[in-house]
Amino acid sequence: MERILSNQCKDYINKKVVLFGYVHNIRKLGGLVFIILRDKSGIVQTIIEKPDEVISSLGLESVVKISGRVREEKRAPNGIEVEIEKLEPIVLVKEQIPIEINKPIEYSKVSLDKILSYRSVTLRNLQIRAIFKIQAGLAEAFRKFLNSEGFTEVFTPKIVKTATEGGAELFPVRYFEKRAYLAQSPQFYKQIMVGVFEKVFEVGYVFRAEKHETKRHLNEYVSLDVEVGFIKDEEDLMELHTKLLRYMFNYIRENFLEELEMYNIKLPKIDKIPRVSFSEAINILRKKYKKSCEGDLDPEGERLICKYFKEETDSDLVFITLYPREKSPMYAMPYQENPKLARKFDLLYKGVEITTGGQRIHDYKMLKKSIKERGLNPEDFSFYLQAFRYGMPPHGGFGIGLERLTCQMLELRNVKEASLFPRDRHRLVP
Amino acid sequence: MERILSNQCKDYINKKVVLFGYVHNIRKLGGLVFIILRDKSGIVQTIIEKPDEVISSLGLESVVKISGRVREEKRAPNGIEVEIEKLEPIVLVKEQIPIEINKPIEYSKVSLDKILSYRSVTLRNLQIRAIFKIQAGLAEAFRKFLNSEGFTEVFTPKIVKTATEGGAELFPVRYFEKRAYLAQSPQFYKQIMVGVFEKVFEVGYVFRAEKHETKRHLNEYVSLDVEVGFIKDEEDLMELHTKLLRYMFNYIRENFLEELEMYNIKLPKIDKIPRVSFSEAINILRKKYKKSCEGDLDPEGERLICKYFKEETDSDLVFITLYPREKSPMYAMPYQENPKLARKFDLLYKGVEITTGGQRIHDYKMLKKSIKERGLNPEDFSFYLQAFRYGMPPHGGFGIGLERLTCQMLELRNVKEASLFPRDRHRLVP
Repeated sequence: MERILSNQCKDYINKKVVLFGYVHNIRKLGGLVFIILRDKSGIVQTIIEKPDEVISSLGLESVVKISGRVREEKRAPNGIEVEIEKLEPIVLVKEQIPIEINKPIEYSKVSLDKILSYRSVTLRNLQIRAIFKIQAGLAEAFRKFLNSEGFTEVFTPKIVKTATEGGAELFPVRYFEKRAYLAQSPQFYKQIMVGVFEKVFEVGYVFRAEKHETKRHLNEYVSLDVEVGFIKDEEDLMELHTKLLRYMFNYIRENFLEELEMYNIKLPKIDKIPRVSFSEAINILRKKYKKSCEGDLDPEGERLICKYFKEETDSDLVFITLYPREKSPMYAMPYQENPKLARKFDLLYKGVEITTGGQRIHDYKMLKKSIKERGLNPEDFSFYLQAFRYGMPPHGGFGIGLERLTCQMLELRNVKEASLFPRDRHRLVP
Repeated sequence: MERILSNQCKDYINKKVVLFGYVHNIRKLGGLVFIILRDKSGIVQTIIEKPDEVISSLGLESVVKISGRVREEKRAPNGIEVEIEKLEPIVLVKEQIPIEINKPIEYSKVSLDKILSYRSVTLRNLQIRAIFKIQAGLAEAFRKFLNSEGFTEVFTPKIVKTATEGGAELFPVRYFEKRAYLAQSPQFYKQIMVGVFEKVFEVGYVFRAEKHETKRHLNEYVSLDVEVGFIKDEEDLMELHTKLLRYMFNYIRENFLEELEMYNIKLPKIDKIPRVSFSEAINILRKKYKKSCEGDLDPEGERLICKYFKEETDSDLVFITLYPREKSPMYAMPYQENPKLARKFDLLYKGVEITTGGQRIHDYKMLKKSIKERGLNPEDFSFYLQAFRYGMPPHGGFGIGLERLTCQMLELRNVKEASLFPRDRHRLVP
């Protein structure tokens, strides 16, 4: 007999089936033994009247094969149960499971640190694994949309010689006899690839040697990167980003309803995303919240701006535009009318920045000048400047943090919960 | 007027159009100027009778906007040309292009080293960029097939504490105060994830500090990884791999005909992939080719085995099975009947190994014993062993080198040609 998955049982009422999976839970009631079986599709109740010794002593997470007959049973979850005819243990687990994973984790009682230390077990929890089903869905939707819009996927180097922004936060790598770094962004390479394919995207890890351990930072995260040529200006990018997110949200709503429900999330349809200039945002913070935020939007500032726009426009998302150029990277395109401002934008989602993007300088001389103005040496960027020397169109793009997007969507407590095996200042294992 | 792409011109005969792109080539004939315009979709001939000074002095790779009218012209490539009404330069390139990129590169005259050093320009060559369109297509097809088979995509860490196989070939990373390494494979993590999702895949970079510079090695490459639970044995994996490659080949044949034709490649339909045991392969080499290959299949051995099976079965692909266990990693499942052999396989394609895979040990005690037998310390693998301690099903998987697959498919000279920005012992830039 062919194996079926637990969520297919409903189509096999009064029929014989074979299931493979894990012993998710066991209850004994009089002479009866109820075994909740978990597999990739979910869970199903199985039952046996006269358990043998093996069954009576089955440990949680044991791997088993169950042959039996499906029947309707109103009292069972999903109204179905499988009457066990034969249970064959494949792997018997004797050890006590270190964290109860067969019910929602009580975060007030179990520390995130412990959850992460037992990651290979805690990821099996239905609520926790739902996070990563949705994450996979987000990456898939990102690519689906961009492929349908004529974008080409690229794979760019992660071991690099030069810092993208000449800056700190780099992990050094010993590359044979040379010193190299882990790429903190595919920025330069995705721009070069605009000269080749015009519209490109990449889904890949980036590495940030961010020293501070916060709820919103990971030292290694997946960046959903987009770069596109022949744009008018950054407006085109914000429009593309809006369409992309609309598609991604719809895709998750349509395909991961069960997972969203576990987190009690109703995903809105994205229509227009409100926007506010950086200086206006600073004003709102000062006037409405008595918060002074001269330099930059700090986490508290981002949270309050989102609160404001949620109240004013009922949107979970808001673009911040018109950034001061001095706060923008050297490749950011300045406004001609006001060169103190850059054509850069950020996107905030439920209080946290998930995207940063903008139009880039595409003129060779202007870019070289901008590099020098930052006190950097154009020679260090010669492979990047090469593309501009031989002609680059007006272009720009953005990068979305996949774990942050997942975290904000499901309203998790910490972005580490949205990384399978997160890396932070102190965590390299598992 | 909306912009159209060059390959849409045929639908606009006698109509006005707007095109954006690069000056791919210029020819002057009497008073006429022919400008071949290149964009993301291909090239189209444009023509002007009375060029002004700007047009007369346009440098190659200049970025332009052309407004004009499409007309049929038998002598033009594709039988179509665009009569220029207005040409607006967007970026004027004055520099001489260092390598002629508007025709197929003559590899006998230009070194690969030079091609790679001018990568941001040479990637714009139509034949070279075709390589990476196909590469993107292969990655897309890989994911499409696996998604349709119920697999879940995972993102696993690239900064790790322990070597996958306890071995050499690792790049050290300074991780704050700690020493870490770049992951040489997602092996441990994808296995752990079988315990969560049962069927997983990952498309991501792996890093090998391989000292030798060869035509078949990259120090950083994209690995297409698959891992699947509840298998019978490695037969299931080879069957899955065959189906997957069949789908990928069909996908490329159906969607990238033009690119395949540039390389004069006809992709066969994959039916059954022949297989040969490791010891039989050694025998064939000895008997048929007088080649002694006691230890392992060297590159020459792989080439000859493929030659043999091409002649015998007309297959470009061949599985090598039944590897000696001592040549297999510690997690390889031994045969019960003959514990000197492992349930491991490689797949060769046109003379080069593109895949390695096999069934893994899933029993906790057996795995711990195997680790010890290799002289390794189980404590170093405790996060990996954790998954097995709490129950893992019979499972296995494989990893395909994306650049090698691309290289072999298009019969390129060097795997570096199939990496956008390859890394080797001496190359960290671009």
